[in-house]
Amino acid sequence: MNYSSIPVAQTVVMHCKAKGIKDIVISPGSRNAPLTIGFTEDPYFDCYSIVDERSAAFFALGMAQQWQRPVAVLCTSGSALLNYYPAVAEAFYSTVPLVVISADRPFYKIDVGDGQTIRQDHVFDRHIGYSANLKQDVSHATGKVRKYAPETMDGEVEKLQVGIQVYNDEVLNKAMNLAIDRRLPVHINVPLEEPLYDKVTKPNVYPNCEVSHEKDAILENLEEFSKQWNSAKRKMVLVGVNYPNSIEEKFLDSLGTDPSVIVLTETTSNLHHPNFFPSIDSIIAPIEKSGHSEEMFKALQPDILLTFGGLVVSKKIKAFLRKYKPTQHWHIDPLRANDTFFALNHHFKEHANGFFNRFMPKSVHVDSEYFEFWDRFKVVYEAKRESYIKNIPFSDFLVFKNIFGKMPEGVQLQMANSSTIRYAQLFDLKPSLEVFCNRGTSGIDGSVSTAVGAAMANGKQTVLITGDLSFFYDSNGLWNKYLRPDFRIIVINNEGGGIFRILPGKEETETYATYFETTHGLDAAHLCKMYGLDYCSVKDEVALNDQLDDFFESSTIPKLLEIKTPRTLNNKILMEYFDFISSGIINHIL
Amino acid sequence: MNYSSIPVAQTVVMHCKAKGIKDIVISPGSRNAPLTIGFTEDPYFDCYSIVDERSAAFFALGMAQQWQRPVAVLCTSGSALLNYYPAVAEAFYSTVPLVVISADRPFYKIDVGDGQTIRQDHVFDRHIGYSANLKQDVSHATGKVRKYAPETMDGEVEKLQVGIQVYNDEVLNKAMNLAIDRRLPVHINVPLEEPLYDKVTKPNVYPNCEVSHEKDAILENLEEFSKQWNSAKRKMVLVGVNYPNSIEEKFLDSLGTDPSVIVLTETTSNLHHPNFFPSIDSIIAPIEKSGHSEEMFKALQPDILLTFGGLVVSKKIKAFLRKYKPTQHWHIDPLRANDTFFALNHHFKEHANGFFNRFMPKSVHVDSEYFEFWDRFKVVYEAKRESYIKNIPFSDFLVFKNIFGKMPEGVQLQMANSSTIRYAQLFDLKPSLEVFCNRGTSGIDGSVSTAVGAAMANGKQTVLITGDLSFFYDSNGLWNKYLRPDFRIIVINNEGGGIFRILPGKEETETYATYFETTHGLDAAHLCKMYGLDYCSVKDEVALNDQLDDFFESSTIPKLLEIKTPRTLNNKILMEYFDFISSGIINHIL
Repeated sequence: MNYSSIPVAQTVVMHCKAKGIKDIVISPGSRNAPLTIGFTEDPYFDCYSIVDERSAAFFALGMAQQWQRPVAVLCTSGSALLNYYPAVAEAFYSTVPLVVISADRPFYKIDVGDGQTIRQDHVFDRHIGYSANLKQDVSHATGKVRKYAPETMDGEVEKLQVGIQVYNDEVLNKAMNLAIDRRLPVHINVPLEEPLYDKVTKPNVYPNCEVSHEKDAILENLEEFSKQWNSAKRKMVLVGVNYPNSIEEKFLDSLGTDPSVIVLTETTSNLHHPNFFPSIDSIIAPIEKSGHSEEMFKALQPDILLTFGGLVVSKKIKAFLRKYKPTQHWHIDPLRANDTFFALNHHFKEHANGFFNRFMPKSVHVDSEYFEFWDRFKVVYEAKRESYIKNIPFSDFLVFKNIFGKMPEGVQLQMANSSTIRYAQLFDLKPSLEVFCNRGTSGIDGSVSTAVGAAMANGKQTVLITGDLSFFYDSNGLWNKYLRPDFRIIVINNEGGGIFRILPGKEETETYATYFETTHGLDAAHLCKMYGLDYCSVKDEVALNDQLDDFFESSTIPKLLEIKTPRTLNNKILMEYFDFISSGIINHIL
Repeated sequence: MNYSSIPVAQTVVMHCKAKGIKDIVISPGSRNAPLTIGFTEDPYFDCYSIVDERSAAFFALGMAQQWQRPVAVLCTSGSALLNYYPAVAEAFYSTVPLVVISADRPFYKIDVGDGQTIRQDHVFDRHIGYSANLKQDVSHATGKVRKYAPETMDGEVEKLQVGIQVYNDEVLNKAMNLAIDRRLPVHINVPLEEPLYDKVTKPNVYPNCEVSHEKDAILENLEEFSKQWNSAKRKMVLVGVNYPNSIEEKFLDSLGTDPSVIVLTETTSNLHHPNFFPSIDSIIAPIEKSGHSEEMFKALQPDILLTFGGLVVSKKIKAFLRKYKPTQHWHIDPLRANDTFFALNHHFKEHANGFFNRFMPKSVHVDSEYFEFWDRFKVVYEAKRESYIKNIPFSDFLVFKNIFGKMPEGVQLQMANSSTIRYAQLFDLKPSLEVFCNRGTSGIDGSVSTAVGAAMANGKQTVLITGDLSFFYDSNGLWNKYLRPDFRIIVINNEGGGIFRILPGKEETETYATYFETTHGLDAAHLCKMYGLDYCSVKDEVALNDQLDDFFESSTIPKLLEIKTPRTLNNKILMEYFDFISSGIINHIL
């Protein structure tokens, strides 16, 4: 096996191997050649090649999201690195362990006018777990003839090089263990001197790779908390982004059957129980629209709010809980607790399963009308939704209903931002579906690449549902050799940012269409031809259902279904949905 | 005319207007609605809509590059902003005044789990002229009812708001005047509270917009410098990226006719004189390859190196001058002096024209064999190049020769990185061509968008010459409504990063093809159909010349010509070119 001749390149590769970071998404370049050589020569690593670094990083993020372990991206020097930033920020807020490795010029060539040279160290510092800025091998910096093996080095260089190795090992250990333990993105910047392509058959360095064993967090005594819990009549559990099958059924069942608890979930919570409330906005909107909103919101306001998981999609629940604050807000997460409702009292620094394992034996079901009242509410809006759907024309709303109805059991769903994931929240999805969405920054910039990477990583069929803007924005996500034949894309093309028609500023003016809605006349047909996807387009319900019938069946190439919906009608159907389920619901319940 | 109801949004818009920043490239979003309203409602501004922020920023950079004045980009909150970074870094190193305006969430909603919310302030601090982090209107922060007009504010809010206005005016003046005077990119971050879409018919703020009058730099006495100049027998003038027609002819003529001066230019120098040396590598390569390189390099080594313009493309000249350092290196530039050759002695902080205007009257032509010797060298390699070209097969090299031969007079050439601009350096281009290339960071990430923006801004026909990787990387550059019908793209498709085949590590292995060269099987036909460009593909010299004959003629839609060249042959032809011109050249001269 060959190794790059450069000690720091060998060191980085060996650290990755020692830490089990085996998947490396490489973008082409010359400065990163020593690292590319190191990773591609060693069969331990699975390497992937993606040209556009923005797409490469989201692709890696998709893999890391699925595997729940660090995945590395590697790029050359210069602006290449900056194209990683959207995915780095997403990884930072979604706690996905993306390990960014950038090749850099030697330090003395920065800011002197060399090509592809920027200030790479600390460039992500606003949104990174840790920046490991490696030191350059001294044999390069001094311009001396390279002598890698310690025994051939003369005294001075050897001593300096030993110091550099110690430093590099230390920061590499810190970076990689942070990615592994805390699931934060990290940045490793590697200055490399020419010649870049030399190989050796034996490594010249013996790095000190420390695999961390994270200390167990000190867990708080739960007595006091369970006392509060057991005496509270209104407890709300709200779950954000949550990995499928990560919470034990018995805990969910206990929460779902406690008369004093309501559990609000989102599509991205990946939690299902007949007694849970999966369409938050279908509760809040009718209250907002009722003549009794103050009274009703007070009835919904919890004494204790218990949250776990990542970010919450519903704007309505945030607005509600910020105004009608819970007396207690407790959040469970090993790493972070966002004070989303400006009411956070306690952060349980552990995984939800571990917390419930300790907490459930101490908790008792409490007699209360809380669940029962809101459950009646749910029954009514669910019935109303069914009846509403029967009478609406072809539109985004109806399309989502049909898609979810025809979705096969057990597939992985990747949802784009932002209309897509918001529409999905209005429906009950099959419990066997696994739902993912980049909600860390909620950007439209990497949905396709993330889905392609996630599909690669996950054994299941993956379906990406996306709006047209998200799809075209990240069309480079299709520019790679890793699209699985069973990969499916559904583009809901409402000719622009349909979400803007739902927001308050909507106007039927050209200015509005251009700068907010951003209408275009594009469809996905040409991109499908270019990248070898089967393409089909529909624009009515019959054709849609006809296509959906065998869309998910196995095929030799991936498929894309484009659904053209009426741009100016979609927002009306959505608005009227909330009006329809709201009308009379309060009187019906009270 | 309508205004956003939000004071800080009004303030930003008014500052832009007061400072003559009239071109605004807007990406869709809701958080930036107050600013979008402000810019689009006022007919003073020319607004452009581009969805992909990465492309939008390069598009704006192309406009600012042409107009030599600030152009603004505007985006919503969250990761949108991060997609600007590649263009921001390019602007930073190319000193192009890109004014980045980002809408932000209110400060108290950052890092609490809100959607599309990141840490936007200071995010570009490694590569920005100045970050103006505006303060949020106090009426929002306090949650009080908004009272914009000072006379209706109650005492406390009014006082706070006045202080905020003073601060915002100050940092806005600083940012915008820096962009105007120093041509650096700047970032203005604008926190905005809901409601975002409200309009008023009269502005409520009276910002203090100070248009700067930059003080004249203190100019040094040139006596001592001219004494040195007038006594030196070997003076080299090396010009990097330079705006067309920006240096007076008489200065060029004086330099070109001084026997003790050789002027080395690059394609991007946009300087032409029969006595200049426009193909630097064609001088250096033969010396490197000769048996007399030490002796010859010493003969080329200048006493004084005078440089101006932006970054230098040629790696060979950098390597040469770093090894054979000039006794004096002086750089002329109002802003920066890179110590590119680790030999910088003096930085004249003024424009080259101003410098020469003061310097030329003091300088005399010096008797020397320096010019004459190297001119003979040039005559030989130029003759050899002609004879080489007559005998080579269809390849990248020959394609460039043909393209430049058929290029109409007076067009604007936009060159992509990196093979493209490097090949161009080997030929004499028509002096009427204006050549641009993003050499600040030398990235492949924004060539298409930059060219489209530059074409928009410049009255001339614009031709983008690009390799396949650069083209596909930035194919979103075609996703806008601003492609001029006379815009032309020439894609030299050698199926991957042809430049890697020229670099030292080349191997004919699958690993190499995948991770370095990054071969693909794509062509540009589908993208042309998608975005409405006329498409034609050629793969031999006859067809190429046939197409080039009327390719530049006026048309109703833009055109793209794809030239497929033999992947595995191109590097051989290029290498052999240097061998061919080198062989015997030294003996011929000495």
